[in-house]
Amino acid sequence: MPKFQTVRGMRDFLPSDAEKLRHVEAVTKEVARLYGFEEIITPLVEYYDLLAAKSGEEIKARLYAFNDLAGRKVALRPEFTASIARLMATTLRNEPKPLRLFSTGTLYRYDEPQFGRYREFWQSNFEIIGSSKPEADIEVLALTNHLMQKLGLRNYRFKIGHVGILRGVLFEEGVKDEEQNIVMQLLDTKRWDEALGTARGFGVSEKGIMALKEIFEAKGKDGSRVLTQVKKKLKEYASSVAAVENLQQIIGLCKEGGIKFDMSIEARFARGLEYYTGMIFEPLVPEMEISLGGGGRYDKLVEMFGGESTPAVGVAHGLDRIALAIDKQNVAPESSKKIVAVIPIGEKTVPKAMELALRLRKKGVAAELEVMRRSISRALQDADRRKVAHAVILGPKELKERKVMLRDMKNRQQHLVDIEDVFKLL
Amino acid sequence: MPKFQTVRGMRDFLPSDAEKLRHVEAVTKEVARLYGFEEIITPLVEYYDLLAAKSGEEIKARLYAFNDLAGRKVALRPEFTASIARLMATTLRNEPKPLRLFSTGTLYRYDEPQFGRYREFWQSNFEIIGSSKPEADIEVLALTNHLMQKLGLRNYRFKIGHVGILRGVLFEEGVKDEEQNIVMQLLDTKRWDEALGTARGFGVSEKGIMALKEIFEAKGKDGSRVLTQVKKKLKEYASSVAAVENLQQIIGLCKEGGIKFDMSIEARFARGLEYYTGMIFEPLVPEMEISLGGGGRYDKLVEMFGGESTPAVGVAHGLDRIALAIDKQNVAPESSKKIVAVIPIGEKTVPKAMELALRLRKKGVAAELEVMRRSISRALQDADRRKVAHAVILGPKELKERKVMLRDMKNRQQHLVDIEDVFKLL
Repeated sequence: MPKFQTVRGMRDFLPSDAEKLRHVEAVTKEVARLYGFEEIITPLVEYYDLLAAKSGEEIKARLYAFNDLAGRKVALRPEFTASIARLMATTLRNEPKPLRLFSTGTLYRYDEPQFGRYREFWQSNFEIIGSSKPEADIEVLALTNHLMQKLGLRNYRFKIGHVGILRGVLFEEGVKDEEQNIVMQLLDTKRWDEALGTARGFGVSEKGIMALKEIFEAKGKDGSRVLTQVKKKLKEYASSVAAVENLQQIIGLCKEGGIKFDMSIEARFARGLEYYTGMIFEPLVPEMEISLGGGGRYDKLVEMFGGESTPAVGVAHGLDRIALAIDKQNVAPESSKKIVAVIPIGEKTVPKAMELALRLRKKGVAAELEVMRRSISRALQDADRRKVAHAVILGPKELKERKVMLRDMKNRQQHLVDIEDVFKLL
Repeated sequence: MPKFQTVRGMRDFLPSDAEKLRHVEAVTKEVARLYGFEEIITPLVEYYDLLAAKSGEEIKARLYAFNDLAGRKVALRPEFTASIARLMATTLRNEPKPLRLFSTGTLYRYDEPQFGRYREFWQSNFEIIGSSKPEADIEVLALTNHLMQKLGLRNYRFKIGHVGILRGVLFEEGVKDEEQNIVMQLLDTKRWDEALGTARGFGVSEKGIMALKEIFEAKGKDGSRVLTQVKKKLKEYASSVAAVENLQQIIGLCKEGGIKFDMSIEARFARGLEYYTGMIFEPLVPEMEISLGGGGRYDKLVEMFGGESTPAVGVAHGLDRIALAIDKQNVAPESSKKIVAVIPIGEKTVPKAMELALRLRKKGVAAELEVMRRSISRALQDADRRKVAHAVILGPKELKERKVMLRDMKNRQQHLVDIEDVFKLL
């Protein structure tokens, strides 16, 4: 039999890493609760056509796609939003709006593995469905900000933009949606010159190319100034101007409402998924080049899947990436686990040890029954290595007087105590 | 675009069902903590050869198998134990024993969908690795019992057996392991006559066939008597006798140690996975024909994957099935969610509403900002429908006096209060 390994791009989380990932997940679940989001669980395996429909060529080419045993063409989900859009077009079609939906789990993309990028990765996904108002965009920004704060992350910032700025120019230059998508994909992967050449090929005028170049250069920390300038320069492209104004309104309301975060505005910012129609953003920390998540507005998606025209805005947080970030910034909480080792001396005392362990557990105390029948010294040595908090040692003689030895593993002190006192002391 | 559905055998969990499933999952995680199990997260996609190696023909034929983009033959995991065995043979090879490992997530089998049986299903999986002693078997039984109790399930019982009883006869009749597996598979699917015929074909003597028939009939509630009788009848098959004695010891210790549960002993009990070598069990409730999980001892598995010879015992709990059971028995906890709707009157009060929502959330109170800019009456109507607990209404006039309207949605009473009082009252 060969020596088995994980498949390339997949990985195991051993307990200490699993604990960090679950910590991040628990905090996103708490944030979901605080912001009124309800959990939806969708399947990992969906029809290929659903997942491929609106995810962009780049992602489509990297789907884990296959035929099931009945020949259905299916794939592992590369994101949550297509599944949510499916639900909005079917089961949840007539549900009153707005809906605040939350999902968490693994996603799959056949990317080239690199630091922080695996083929199986973890996300928590939030969507507000039914509102076109900036308040909805802000709720999504605010909850992401809240998450970063709750996790204790420092010096994070939001890269923020609006796909309507670029698309506005392309649209008014007469570039069709599918052609726009091609240009946007090139921009997402930072191939600026190629994007300009392609835009020219799609009939964009020299004035349009100049406008795009202006957009490429419009970025900076001071949100309001960058946007005022780019708005002035794009004044002949009404759709782009509307996009800038929408972004200004969102950022302005955030500031007024006390939602504070550092931001860098990038007018040229594009994201891999094709369905965005409005504000887009990504949270980043200085220690990592890759973003910790990403989100934005997608007002046409549900419609594309055959549902009613439904505005929506959402964000996905990369849980495993965030776990890396809290590692890098050393802000992961200390493990608060406290375990009691329950060690019988000799076979005859095993039932009493079982009983004691059960009573501890019923009281909420974590207990490990000695299952190896090791000598006391070996069992204690092992408990020591694993940083067990206390040991309860049950000897046959002591048991006759209803007493056991209670040992504090940290200070290595032990006392003979009444059995009943164990439940008071631990 | 076609109207998309879930793929056959897959399903969505809408919020109320998702809440139940997460409740069951949370309780299994709490039980994992109480019994000292540490979480391991393994990938969903593993090498086909790993998953197929020891899972039995029945399961192998129903794997979701495919080639990834580099042509690796992979599959979606149909169970957790193969991945854990992989880890034991590699990364965790030199880890001191015993190990208590816990995993939770989705699994995939291409079964015929039916009540409680989906192609994507949820399990929590527990393994104690390194101990051959009955204490380890009992820890696994005890934690399963603890889980059932903590969930409030009534009238559940454990079907319990030992694969060594049947295999002992086959072994001593000279039937090879692979041939034994074929007979065991037939027994797992209750094809008794076929199993006997096949055993004959493998050279089992008439005395052996009689012994097998005795085993088929040995079942009942009173554990000790059933096992005493079958032991007497199998006295010429030493391996079977040893298996019965092992099971007697486990059951005896459980009783002595105060681990109480109803049980039905079935000497003929077999399970779908081939790797079991000792005690096996399944928890059941009278309302459902399918088991709520299953487990047992598998002392040779790690070795089969190239690791050191390592005794192990484990159990997997079917989370979605258990969620069905708590539904059937009506013991799911009431949702304790409490949400405050924060409703600005007019655009100008939006920033104040955002601020108030943020402060509530920082205090741990779940708040939903009105994101639709609806009229007060429509917003309240919606809050009512969704059983929101309180509404805070921010009017421009009242805000000038630093007051807001606080409405109790249940008794429909509302009072003008100081803004600061909102944080004291909610």
